[in-house]
Amino acid sequence: MFKHEKALLHEVGVERPNPNYAAMLQEQLGGPHGELKAAMQYLSQSFRIKDPALKDLFLDIAAEELSHMEMVAATINLLNGHELNASNATVGTIEAHVLSGLNPVLTNASGELWTAAYVDVTGDLAADILSNIAAEQRAKVVYEYLYRQINDKKVRETIDFLLNREEAHNTLFREAFNKLQETGSLKDWGVTQDSKLYFDLSTPGKYFSLNAANPPKFESPQ
Amino acid sequence: MFKHEKALLHEVGVERPNPNYAAMLQEQLGGPHGELKAAMQYLSQSFRIKDPALKDLFLDIAAEELSHMEMVAATINLLNGHELNASNATVGTIEAHVLSGLNPVLTNASGELWTAAYVDVTGDLAADILSNIAAEQRAKVVYEYLYRQINDKKVRETIDFLLNREEAHNTLFREAFNKLQETGSLKDWGVTQDSKLYFDLSTPGKYFSLNAANPPKFESPQ
Amino acid sequence: MFKHEKALLHEVGVERPNPNYAAMLQEQLGGPHGELKAAMQYLSQSFRIKDPALKDLFLDIAAEELSHMEMVAATINLLNGHELNASNATVGTIEAHVLSGLNPVLTNASGELWTAAYVDVTGDLAADILSNIAAEQRAKVVYEYLYRQINDKKVRETIDFLLNREEAHNTLFREAFNKLQETGSLKDWGVTQDSKLYFDLSTPGKYFSLNAANPPKFESPQ
Amino acid sequence: MFKHEKALLHEVGVERPNPNYAAMLQEQLGGPHGELKAAMQYLSQSFRIKDPALKDLFLDIAAEELSHMEMVAATINLLNGHELNASNATVGTIEAHVLSGLNPVLTNASGELWTAAYVDVTGDLAADILSNIAAEQRAKVVYEYLYRQINDKKVRETIDFLLNREEAHNTLFREAFNKLQETGSLKDWGVTQDSKLYFDLSTPGKYFSLNAANPPKFESPQ
Amino acid sequence: MFKHEKALLHEVGVERPNPNYAAMLQEQLGGPHGELKAAMQYLSQSFRIKDPALKDLFLDIAAEELSHMEMVAATINLLNGHELNASNATVGTIEAHVLSGLNPVLTNASGELWTAAYVDVTGDLAADILSNIAAEQRAKVVYEYLYRQINDKKVRETIDFLLNREEAHNTLFREAFNKLQETGSLKDWGVTQDSKLYFDLSTPGKYFSLNAANPPKFESPQ
Amino acid sequence: MFKHEKALLHEVGVERPNPNYAAMLQEQLGGPHGELKAAMQYLSQSFRIKDPALKDLFLDIAAEELSHMEMVAATINLLNGHELNASNATVGTIEAHVLSGLNPVLTNASGELWTAAYVDVTGDLAADILSNIAAEQRAKVVYEYLYRQINDKKVRETIDFLLNREEAHNTLFREAFNKLQETGSLKDWGVTQDSKLYFDLSTPGKYFSLNAANPPKFESPQ
Repeated sequence: MFKHEKALLHEVGVERPNPNYAAMLQEQLGGPHGELKAAMQYLSQSFRIKDPALKDLFLDIAAEELSHMEMVAATINLLNGHELNASNATVGTIEAHVLSGLNPVLTNASGELWTAAYVDVTGDLAADILSNIAAEQRAKVVYEYLYRQINDKKVRETIDFLLNREEAHNTLFREAFNKLQETGSLKDWGVTQDSKLYFDLSTPGKYFSLNAANPPKFESPQ
Repeated sequence: MFKHEKALLHEVGVERPNPNYAAMLQEQLGGPHGELKAAMQYLSQSFRIKDPALKDLFLDIAAEELSHMEMVAATINLLNGHELNASNATVGTIEAHVLSGLNPVLTNASGELWTAAYVDVTGDLAADILSNIAAEQRAKVVYEYLYRQINDKKVRETIDFLLNREEAHNTLFREAFNKLQETGSLKDWGVTQDSKLYFDLSTPGKYFSLNAANPPKFESPQ
Repeated sequence: MFKHEKALLHEVGVERPNPNYAAMLQEQLGGPHGELKAAMQYLSQSFRIKDPALKDLFLDIAAEELSHMEMVAATINLLNGHELNASNATVGTIEAHVLSGLNPVLTNASGELWTAAYVDVTGDLAADILSNIAAEQRAKVVYEYLYRQINDKKVRETIDFLLNREEAHNTLFREAFNKLQETGSLKDWGVTQDSKLYFDLSTPGKYFSLNAANPPKFESPQ
Repeated sequence: MFKHEKALLHEVGVERPNPNYAAMLQEQLGGPHGELKAAMQYLSQSFRIKDPALKDLFLDIAAEELSHMEMVAATINLLNGHELNASNATVGTIEAHVLSGLNPVLTNASGELWTAAYVDVTGDLAADILSNIAAEQRAKVVYEYLYRQINDKKVRETIDFLLNREEAHNTLFREAFNKLQETGSLKDWGVTQDSKLYFDLSTPGKYFSLNAANPPKFESPQ
Repeated sequence: MFKHEKALLHEVGVERPNPNYAAMLQEQLGGPHGELKAAMQYLSQSFRIKDPALKDLFLDIAAEELSHMEMVAATINLLNGHELNASNATVGTIEAHVLSGLNPVLTNASGELWTAAYVDVTGDLAADILSNIAAEQRAKVVYEYLYRQINDKKVRETIDFLLNREEAHNTLFREAFNKLQETGSLKDWGVTQDSKLYFDLSTPGKYFSLNAANPPKFESPQ
Repeated sequence: MFKHEKALLHEVGVERPNPNYAAMLQEQLGGPHGELKAAMQYLSQSFRIKDPALKDLFLDIAAEELSHMEMVAATINLLNGHELNASNATVGTIEAHVLSGLNPVLTNASGELWTAAYVDVTGDLAADILSNIAAEQRAKVVYEYLYRQINDKKVRETIDFLLNREEAHNTLFREAFNKLQETGSLKDWGVTQDSKLYFDLSTPGKYFSLNAANPPKFESPQ
């Protein structure tokens, strides 16, 4: 069961409205590495998890990502200001000006509608946690890109908070991954000959060789 | 901010696994009139609502729809059972058997991925609430269709609960709509000549005439 | 059977070409609340309607929406002018300049391709007519947004005409809705206990209560 | 302007309901080579055509394809019968049973929603007419596939009619293409050296050589 | 089996970075008539071709289109330059600036994600080759549009090369088409009465008549 | 530049045709964790890589994934057999029977068209390689699911080969990842307070705590 509290997880603000920044920030509301994607991925994966500790972790983070989604939306809302004027929105999607009356929308920065094609769920814990580690890293990268380009002190504070939270989730998923030992899709790693071949199909150059075939694991925290 | 409680909003169960029923029920998880759509529509619309009473209503219902989503997913999960066997899933999508290890997925009953194209947000309260009234009616209809075909007593209890909840939401949105008087897109209804014409473009037959042009309103509850 | 007459339903014109206005107006050609969506929704719904009066109404309006689609496309065509120059199209989609040789395209203002996900059909008359009432209200709202931003007298005349036509359709669908009494999904409204509960899942605040549970109906025209 | 006449362009019927045939026939309602695609492609292309003879041809065929769409939908409607039972629909999409109350839907036979990505419009007459010739050929092929599998005499009559109509359109577009001589994208065909090279990038085998470089033209009718 | 050589099929370059040109050129990387579409269409069609000469032709061209895709991507990469700044990208998609760190992306110029809906495969050789002839013509047209607008000498050289290659492919497919005589969907062309009717559904005007009903064929090269 | 050799990377075969197995195997041709996705992801990411060793690795694997795509398609082709009969295809997509004349198609097992939304590219090496590690793990998992259900000895041999190759790629990407030290998005990991908080938003239960905040790294091969 989900409950909602009116207070945001963390306060947001803007120095001043800027419809272009609003369009850019849409990327993390409705884009492939945005907050809705993260929330839906962890929530979906949790549906079949039996281990109570893992289920708890996934749902803690899913609830937080939904709360981030609200923060991003609230920031876009402020950046959109009060003037409906697509002509001022010179970069990215103009749906806020022609469709939604300045309401944030579930699209990326260029207007592509959010799709469940962004959500990776395999029902295999190792694969799902690796998907989440990668997803959090990508989310962090996109926030870094936005940080560089959105020159508004208050929006940057919000981005900085969110960016660090993705890092925290990443660390948690990494710990969870390291607890999986030779289970599910990690079993019997590299036991056949085919898993040890390197096909050198591009020329010139061959720099890698497959001298090891252990299942992936993250270095233990020091 | 969203919080999650492990308990479901309302208990669910199944008499026995049935992968075909699981595929059918997917319609209300990831389909156009399903729970994810409802949750995202009301949450998105709430982002720009200023009136505290309406904002509260929208978020109460959004949180409940997210909780319904969990109930539907939990039911699909039980219906999927424990045997990965696409050959037994003779109707609808087989993604649970080939992609997600029996985990519920964000698609409709035929495998179409959920898309934000299902979500209607205009930033105009009258239009948004009418969209919600229509959405709740459609959700109810789909549950009625599923009820007739899913011959499992416990699943039917869940469907009955959800169906009645959509009706309750519908009634609440109707009340909210009736409080809007001549605001936003309801202003100046039918004042030009063009709004009173009937173009008789299909033949034979003309049964309607436009003898009134008031903005839509729902009959007051008796 | 459909027939086409070369004359537009209503003349259109532009004061001068403006590729940005062209991009904005695309929203009502290929967007979620645009003319193609409306035409396809009413046409699709008509496929299973048996009542001749309703079938006539749905097809009259479907034919008119197709005719509106032509008007919108003709206006975009004029606004696109004769110069292929994406660099002048500083807002919204640039497909007219790189893909279609200035021909109007079936996308919204930001380039998202039209999808049948926009079309709501349930086969239940009450739900379908409510969907149409909501759709017409949204269409009107989007035209209002465009009217404010497109500063071309002739385009505004066209928008004004179309906006008023959506209002007329809205009124007609409302009358049709009021003729449905306790049929289809309107039967047995609010008879179970579950349909009368209010779940107070968001805090703080609770402003609504469910003291009535009648099916939705629109106020009779005065 | 479009007008609608209640009579179908050509009568349809079924020997008996068959929900599997209904699902299969959906391919030509909402699939990539179906009637909606054809109607939208020719209508869209007509928006910028100036030559009155060509504009007339495109709109005649567009209106006919919309009329075919109705015929296909009416046939699906009859094939769906009166029993909502997804379990009997053992092949293809089950949306008619869980979503639309047996109403035909705008998807292909496997449930993929219709998308404007199916519609090809370039604003260049030669390219657009070649697109149409190819589209008509594909439509014919799909009807041939359906004819072989749908063992219902009356449905086969309808398919036969539609298949032959696509052939007629094909012939008309071919004649129109042959009237274009060295215009638009057909100008200066094969004048550079690069247009005469053959890159032999797959091995073994090289069977073709580029000994001619005229623009495509269809043999004159004999 | 595919192999990759690091050298491009043909060298590319830019006079100077230009993020707007980068966005425009995206149309031929991830758009409906771009290189990925062409490669996937010919590769997919080749999967069931038995004739060795045709299979060879299709795979030669598929491999070349993949190589074009690399050339287009390499050009976009250079045009994107080194400055992440969505505010400078005043036309088209901004995903390079907010999502991909200036890496080319699989979208069209307005940010629509590439979809397999662009790929036409029917398993009938005549239909598939006609689809390819039309596809090559459209690809050429889009390159012509881009050529006119991208005022960079080196990019124009690349476009010129690619445009002429599409023409060469077109000629090859035309030759292949002319070798098909009365096979597959070309058999029994125009033998029924229905294939010889002209429905005059749009008024005013009727300029065409169906006085011939041969299957389409391209004029023999002179 | 890509070149194609007619020989498959590894021979494939089937014991006997089975249209249901064909539909299931479509998941790895056109699904989210299939071969086309893998090929496009690594190829796209390679566009901006400067390091020659990494570029070589990405392109070696991209070329191999394209070659896998051919193997999967060839297997589907054999499984589809020679009888066009949608009624025999009782699970999953029926497009091979109604649209493509038994040709493999670019969809998943339930008919969803392949979309570039499956492809993750951020331009940050750490994020991209983590995405690839996760993608390979998911691909392996899907092959394991298919292996269990496809009871055809020869198809199982092919699946076994492909599954082990994904493992080999996974190991290679892991090695590549471990060479990245504190670069790009791995810099300054866990230095702010926000990156060390745990929000306990789901109840009951809290099993994890964030006692470490190192960037992710995979255990060195032993």
